[in-house]
Amino acid sequence: MSMQEKSEIISRLSKNMKEYRSKQKITQEELSFRSGLHRNYISDTERGTRNISLEALEKIAKGLEVEVEDLFKRQ
Amino acid sequence: MSMQEKSEIISRLSKNMKEYRSKQKITQEELSFRSGLHRNYISDTERGTRNISLEALEKIAKGLEVEVEDLFKRQ
Repeated sequence: MSMQEKSEIISRLSKNMKEYRSKQKITQEELSFRSGLHRNYISDTERGTRNISLEALEKIAKGLEVEVEDLFKRQ
Repeated sequence: MSMQEKSEIISRLSKNMKEYRSKQKITQEELSFRSGLHRNYISDTERGTRNISLEALEKIAKGLEVEVEDLFKRQ
């Protein structure tokens, strides 16, 4: 997926994920452990280079202990 | 994906999608046209049998003219 094709919600997700993770002072490694997703999957998602599925989204929300909707809030 | 594995947000999405579509009195065919997704993809998603991607989710939200977060609101 080239950068300019990056969808708006993928960008929102990546920003919100980073924000929640840094507020909670946890590493990508820790989020990977909590969510059951590989660390590379977490870092790709935070860089907005992966078009993830709903089930992965749900795991990330659970790992960050936030609601799925919170991951799409506008900055 | 067997029924009992169905994730909670996939169920929420399918209920909300049907609700918005019926409120707007549009067919799956019409939503397929508006979203650019195949009609079977729309019906599978409404039946909760498909683990869709964020980009597909964004297309469905645009087709229904709602925010992505609205598709995850709790019933």
